[in-house]
Amino acid sequence: MLDAPEVWLLAAGSAFPGPPIDNARLAELFGADDLWQQWVEVFLGTRTRHFAVDLETNEVRHSLADLGRTAAERALAGAGLAAADVDVIVLATSMPDHLMPTTVNVVADRLGIDGVPTFQLQSGCTGAVQALQVARQALVAGGHRTALVIGGDVCAKFLDVDLAPGKVKAADLVNIAMFGDAAGAAVLSTDPTPDAVAVRRLDLRLAGLGRESGHTVQWSGTARRDSDGPAVAEDYKAIEEIVPRMAVETARRVLDELGWADSRVDYLLPPQLSGRMTAKIVERLGLPGAKEISCVRETGNTGNALPFLQLERLLPLVGPGQCVLGVAIESSKWIQSAFALERPGAGVGL
Amino acid sequence: MLDAPEVWLLAAGSAFPGPPIDNARLAELFGADDLWQQWVEVFLGTRTRHFAVDLETNEVRHSLADLGRTAAERALAGAGLAAADVDVIVLATSMPDHLMPTTVNVVADRLGIDGVPTFQLQSGCTGAVQALQVARQALVAGGHRTALVIGGDVCAKFLDVDLAPGKVKAADLVNIAMFGDAAGAAVLSTDPTPDAVAVRRLDLRLAGLGRESGHTVQWSGTARRDSDGPAVAEDYKAIEEIVPRMAVETARRVLDELGWADSRVDYLLPPQLSGRMTAKIVERLGLPGAKEISCVRETGNTGNALPFLQLERLLPLVGPGQCVLGVAIESSKWIQSAFALERPGAGVGL
Repeated sequence: MLDAPEVWLLAAGSAFPGPPIDNARLAELFGADDLWQQWVEVFLGTRTRHFAVDLETNEVRHSLADLGRTAAERALAGAGLAAADVDVIVLATSMPDHLMPTTVNVVADRLGIDGVPTFQLQSGCTGAVQALQVARQALVAGGHRTALVIGGDVCAKFLDVDLAPGKVKAADLVNIAMFGDAAGAAVLSTDPTPDAVAVRRLDLRLAGLGRESGHTVQWSGTARRDSDGPAVAEDYKAIEEIVPRMAVETARRVLDELGWADSRVDYLLPPQLSGRMTAKIVERLGLPGAKEISCVRETGNTGNALPFLQLERLLPLVGPGQCVLGVAIESSKWIQSAFALERPGAGVGL
Repeated sequence: MLDAPEVWLLAAGSAFPGPPIDNARLAELFGADDLWQQWVEVFLGTRTRHFAVDLETNEVRHSLADLGRTAAERALAGAGLAAADVDVIVLATSMPDHLMPTTVNVVADRLGIDGVPTFQLQSGCTGAVQALQVARQALVAGGHRTALVIGGDVCAKFLDVDLAPGKVKAADLVNIAMFGDAAGAAVLSTDPTPDAVAVRRLDLRLAGLGRESGHTVQWSGTARRDSDGPAVAEDYKAIEEIVPRMAVETARRVLDELGWADSRVDYLLPPQLSGRMTAKIVERLGLPGAKEISCVRETGNTGNALPFLQLERLLPLVGPGQCVLGVAIESSKWIQSAFALERPGAGVGL
C-alpha cells in the first residue's frame, strides 16, 4: 500500500455538560461521608466530573447528540472546515441516546450533513481509537478526503439523583465518582494543514480470549425478565492487574513497529480509567522524556470521549518534529489500542 | 487507489433460533383473530419467522452471540477457512446482547479468535452493508487478508409472550409479525477461491437530512424517567413512501457508476422490510432480466441479518460472468445502500 494517502489529524474539540461536580457535592447528594470523599481523592484520583443530568432537578439536560454536535462543531472550526467539507462520519459510544435512530445520524442531521457514509461503533474505552481507525481506513480505501470522528458517553440512563441519601449501593457510588459525561471529536484528512500531525500508526487488537469480562453494562427493553446480574458492574481487581500490562504491550508494539526509541516520544496520552490507574500506567510505561497529557482528574473517565479530550489538549503543544504516543485499553472484553502521531519537522516537506 | 487489492466474497452462512412460527400460531398466542391473520398475509406478506424466545415458556433460548457464532462458523466452513484465518471481525446489530461487553467480542471469544481488530456497528436494515464496507476498507487499507462479517438481531428484550391475549397493542403486534430473529455472516478476502464473487461496489449514504425518524427503538438503564414515546415505533406511511424511491436512487447510482446496463444484472437482492414492500420495490426497480433473491416471507424482517441470508441463497446460484445487485434501506434516520457483485467469467483470469 505504498501509494495509500497519508492521513492527518487536523483538529480536536470537546463538549461537557454543566459545571464540574466535585467530590464534596457527590458525597452530599448521595449521603456519603468524609472518609468516602478522601477515598475517592486518593484511590480513584478523580476530583471533578460533569453530568448530563441536572443534579438539582434530576432532569436530563444534554443528550449525547447535543454534546457530539458541539464537540464536532469545535473540531471543524479548529480545522478551518465547514460541515459541508465532511465526507464520512464515525461516532463511537457505549451508551447511545437510542438504539435507533443511531446518534451519529442525529448528529449529522443537526450539523446539516447528508449524502455521506456514517458509522456508529459500540465500544468502551478504546472506542475513540476504533473510530479513528474506521475513519482512517475509509479515507485510505474509500476515496474520501475529510472524516469527522466523534466519541462520547452520557450516563443519564443510569444516574438517578432522586435516590434517597444512603440508598445507592457502594459499588454504584464508585461508578458515579469514576465516570463523567462528555463528547469529543477530531477531524482527519488526507489534506494536511500547516499544524496537522500525521497518523503514523493505529494498533488495535482484541485481547480477551478466555478472559472474563471486566466491565458490564446491561440494557432493557419492554419485556421484563430476570436480569443476569447488576446493570453496571466493574471487576476493579482484574482491571488493575490487567490494564497496565496491556498498556505496555500495545505501546511497545507500536514503538517497535515504527522503530521509535523511547526517547523519541515527546508526549504520552495514557489510559484514563481513573487518576490513580493513569499514574500507575505512566510509571510502568517508563518513557521519561515524554510529557503526560491527562485529564481524568478533572473530567472523570469519559469513556469514548476521552482520547479526544487528550488530543484537544495535545495539539496546541506539539512542535515540528515532535512525536506522540497514545494508549487506550477496553476492559469489558479486553481490547488493546495505541496510536502514534508525528508533526513533520520544519525541514520536512509535506 | 489503482493498486488496492480487490476484495472477494467467499461464502455466507446463517443461523435461526427455533422452528418457524406461522401467523396462526401468533394469532393464537396474542389473541388476534382470523381477519388479523389474513391482513398479515396480504398486507405484510410475511408467513413465518423465528424467535429467540421460547413461545411456550417465555424464556430466551438464544442470544445474538449464540446465533452470530453459528452463522460465522457456517460462513467460515463454506469458505474452507478456520477461525485462525480471520484477521478482522465486524458485527452489525440494532439490539446487542449487552451494551458492554460488545457482542462481537463475545462471538470472537466463542470462536477462539484473539489478537485481531474487532468492530461492532450499531445500525438497522443497512447494517450488513455498513459492516461489509468497514470490513472491505480494513482489508484494502489495513493490510489484512480475511474478514469475518456478521449481522443479526434478536428481539427478545421486546417480546413478552406472557402478556395476556388481547393485551398487546395493535402497533406492537404488527412489529411482532413483521420482524424475526436471525444472524447471518459472510467471509471477505483479498485472496479469492474459485467460486468467489468480486465486490465491485458498495454505495452507502445518509439520506435523512431534515427527515423525521421512520423507526425508533429505545433502551432503558436503571434510572427511571418519563420516556419520550413508545419503546418501538414505526412510521409505516413514511417508510412505504420513501423506501422504494431511495431503493431506486441507490441502485441507479451503483449501476451508473459501474456502467452496467440493466440487462447485465442477473440477480437482484431487494430490500426485505416486509414481503409486500419487497414486491413493490422489485417492481419499481424494473430489472426484468434479474432473478429476485428474497427470504422475508419465510424469515420476517431480520434487520442486520437479512442481506447475509440473501447472500447465502445467492452464492450457489451465481455462474461465471454473472452480476448481482443488492439494495438495503435503513428507515430510522434514512440510509441508502447498495452493493454490486460479479463472478468473473470463465475466460477471465483471477
